Amino acid sequence: MNYPGSIKKEYNKYTSYANRGMNLEELLNSSNEYYLLEDIAIIHKKPTPITISEVKYGEKERVITKAYFRTPSTLDYNGIYKGKYLDFDAKETNNRTSFPLQNIHSHQLSHMESVIRHGGISFLIIYMNDNVFYLDGIEILNFINTSKRKSIPYSYIEEHGYIVEKKIKPRLDYLKIIDQIYFKED
Amino acid sequence: MNYPGSIKKEYNKYTSYANRGMNLEELLNSSNEYYLLEDIAIIHKKPTPITISEVKYGEKERVITKAYFRTPSTLDYNGIYKGKYLDFDAKETNNRTSFPLQNIHSHQLSHMESVIRHGGISFLIIYMNDNVFYLDGIEILNFINTSKRKSIPYSYIEEHGYIVEKKIKPRLDYLKIIDQIYFKED
Repeated sequence: MNYPGSIKKEYNKYTSYANRGMNLEELLNSSNEYYLLEDIAIIHKKPTPITISEVKYGEKERVITKAYFRTPSTLDYNGIYKGKYLDFDAKETNNRTSFPLQNIHSHQLSHMESVIRHGGISFLIIYMNDNVFYLDGIEILNFINTSKRKSIPYSYIEEHGYIVEKKIKPRLDYLKIIDQIYFKED
Repeated sequence: MNYPGSIKKEYNKYTSYANRGMNLEELLNSSNEYYLLEDIAIIHKKPTPITISEVKYGEKERVITKAYFRTPSTLDYNGIYKGKYLDFDAKETNNRTSFPLQNIHSHQLSHMESVIRHGGISFLIIYMNDNVFYLDGIEILNFINTSKRKSIPYSYIEEHGYIVEKKIKPRLDYLKIIDQIYFKED
């Protein structure tokens, strides 16, 4: 069913988000905290890259009074799992039929390619159509290298990606997918 | 020779820094850029961790008008080299006889320990007495576990660390030390 401008559908999606009380970033941060506490993996979200241009000394601490957002040249999350370097990002789209590649900066794509070439694991966690997907960087680069489309069709994500299980602990067990793909022999 | 309060000596150190035109962080950033361009390693400095509390919309872009510095829970630099996860920090001290451990937060020390346990390489790049040292996390943790001292004597750093060569490209070739310690068979 098509909603005009997808507005109603989008609203519904965000309601179901709200029901869970956490957005994608919060779900991932909570999962990473769980992995850290259980000594399963060390994964952190990088701070927002900014350029600080003015700092004042407050009564108790220094306060940044002027700063600008910078375009990130890497992905937001990285760390180590079972000795392997992980590097990934979380993306959401309200688009129901395809994932627009403009969501990923070109230097982020070359970063993914480079990480994989150096022996790391790179991927995207995509929230789309009320599902959370793991889409490996290799599949993303394959798509880009073989298609001229500016967005990845939902069917491609369903076929080449993995649905990330929503649980209590951790909220999004994406390392389970990495086990399936990269540590099958374990 | 002892200078009262080390003031003169410190000044000299910073002069020799200035002569080179770059401080430790800049030398490392420049080295990491070289490693990246030459496709040797992918290592980035994490942005300064801050909590943004106020953003305004300027004419061209969003401007952060209030933000606070957060205590980092990890180290400043991480990335991948020869398939291995690297995680490290850069520290400077004007102290000539020992490196005060208060320069490293306790959660940064447990982070180092955890990274090593998960199969990564963790270390400090220390600028001290006009030398740049590589001191492996294993040596730092060994010192802490066997000594009650609140600072690492310079003699320990000289004995257990490695002097990082200052070159033109890269400015600080610290990966050469990692080759010596971790990739000897290559």
